[in-house]
Amino acid sequence: MKRFEQYRIGPKNRLADIAPRQRPYDLGGKKAELKELDRRARELDALQNLLYASGRRKVLLVLQGMDTSGKDGTIRWVFKRTSPLGIRVAAFKAPSTAERARDFLWRCHAVVPAAGELAVWNRSHYEDVLVPVVEGWIGKAETRQRYEHINHFEKLLTDTGTTVIKCMLHISKDEQRKRLQERLDDPAKNWKFAPEDITARKKWDAYQQAYDALLCATSTDYAPWYVIPADRKRQRNLIIAELLNTKLREMDLQLPDPVPGLEHVRID
Amino acid sequence: MKRFEQYRIGPKNRLADIAPRQRPYDLGGKKAELKELDRRARELDALQNLLYASGRRKVLLVLQGMDTSGKDGTIRWVFKRTSPLGIRVAAFKAPSTAERARDFLWRCHAVVPAAGELAVWNRSHYEDVLVPVVEGWIGKAETRQRYEHINHFEKLLTDTGTTVIKCMLHISKDEQRKRLQERLDDPAKNWKFAPEDITARKKWDAYQQAYDALLCATSTDYAPWYVIPADRKRQRNLIIAELLNTKLREMDLQLPDPVPGLEHVRID
Repeated sequence: MKRFEQYRIGPKNRLADIAPRQRPYDLGGKKAELKELDRRARELDALQNLLYASGRRKVLLVLQGMDTSGKDGTIRWVFKRTSPLGIRVAAFKAPSTAERARDFLWRCHAVVPAAGELAVWNRSHYEDVLVPVVEGWIGKAETRQRYEHINHFEKLLTDTGTTVIKCMLHISKDEQRKRLQERLDDPAKNWKFAPEDITARKKWDAYQQAYDALLCATSTDYAPWYVIPADRKRQRNLIIAELLNTKLREMDLQLPDPVPGLEHVRID
Repeated sequence: MKRFEQYRIGPKNRLADIAPRQRPYDLGGKKAELKELDRRARELDALQNLLYASGRRKVLLVLQGMDTSGKDGTIRWVFKRTSPLGIRVAAFKAPSTAERARDFLWRCHAVVPAAGELAVWNRSHYEDVLVPVVEGWIGKAETRQRYEHINHFEKLLTDTGTTVIKCMLHISKDEQRKRLQERLDDPAKNWKFAPEDITARKKWDAYQQAYDALLCATSTDYAPWYVIPADRKRQRNLIIAELLNTKLREMDLQLPDPVPGLEHVRID
């Protein structure tokens, strides 16, 4: 995991230390990058199969990031070689009435990965320490309390066999401008544009501050945060695919032992 | 849909009328078949994107079939070009204590597709008119009652915007023998083998009979059953991909209208 230390949040490595526009995988152009991504996507498929077959461990990939940071695109590209069978995607939007009537972790707990599963959360419980903080709906004490609840929740998950991988897709303000404009200009992308995105963009600095605070408070030994440079889409995909593969390789997954006595069975 | 009439169950077309080993798509070999499948998988991706973007309609694909009939493989191949974002797979196993404490449709209703989603059910509520029937746990009257409950449930789904597509993957007894033997002989497939598979295989005829009965009783105008020849895996994938694409094309999905007044917005 040494290679990923530069993206891992800790007391000496914060959001502002990680440049969104870097190109850690310089493979000599688009074609080579796509080929390498495909190779990694295939390895991820093999590893996910093993996770499913071994049927004991669980993996949770949390994706956070500003609007247009590429959460959907990451899921599409990183999992392009994986069967939908073993991947469970949950997208968290503004909470419904039923969800608001419970604690903020309730709807997340309902969709944690089962044994053998890899769950991907497109936004997550971290939304509850972003919007309410920026909008001033909760104060400092309640925010700190939520960080604690989150850390305890993730401890529960890791203690019971889940590998939690948290990625914040980090784009620059200028890159977001380009991407939002593209959504407006391209009729095929129009439906992805929401006027609220402009309102949120106006509070860019407040959101970056809220991200910095939550990253510091919830990047634990057992569930660390990785800030992924995401201005360049292929680079972002390559980093996340490799991070996932590395974590899965480290789990040292094995096929289960065959049921004894089956060696000589003939089916008729 | 004319081309699929031959697979559609009706009073004059029953399970025994559909040969499991046929090759409706004779494209001149493996390479051409894989290429064609890829083309269809890409079209499905585009259609699923449209379904997701338009955000109103729902699609439910039900996959049923004997052990080794290829439910997992169908999901892997037909959706190989689709992002896991918009596909929600639910696999139904033997019911848990919590599930048995409710009516048999409860666990299914919980995972119906939401607006814009395509859900795939790997086994389904139809398991409840298979195992209990073959094992004699429920009698004729209760079985008939369950058929009715199923038809009403599927009417509810279609009336509220869901296109229900039901496929029974139809393999021959001899093909199952080969595939089970392969699971025993190949160490990488061993984990997929369950000794119960042999027990179920011994009741092959009873299962075929139970399938024939449920297909007749629940192939409705609004949610018809298709029996898919499945002895040849690539042919099976081609048929299902094309059936899905045809159904999605018929839904005449459109991108939503852009929010008015956005034409001249510039992001800064």
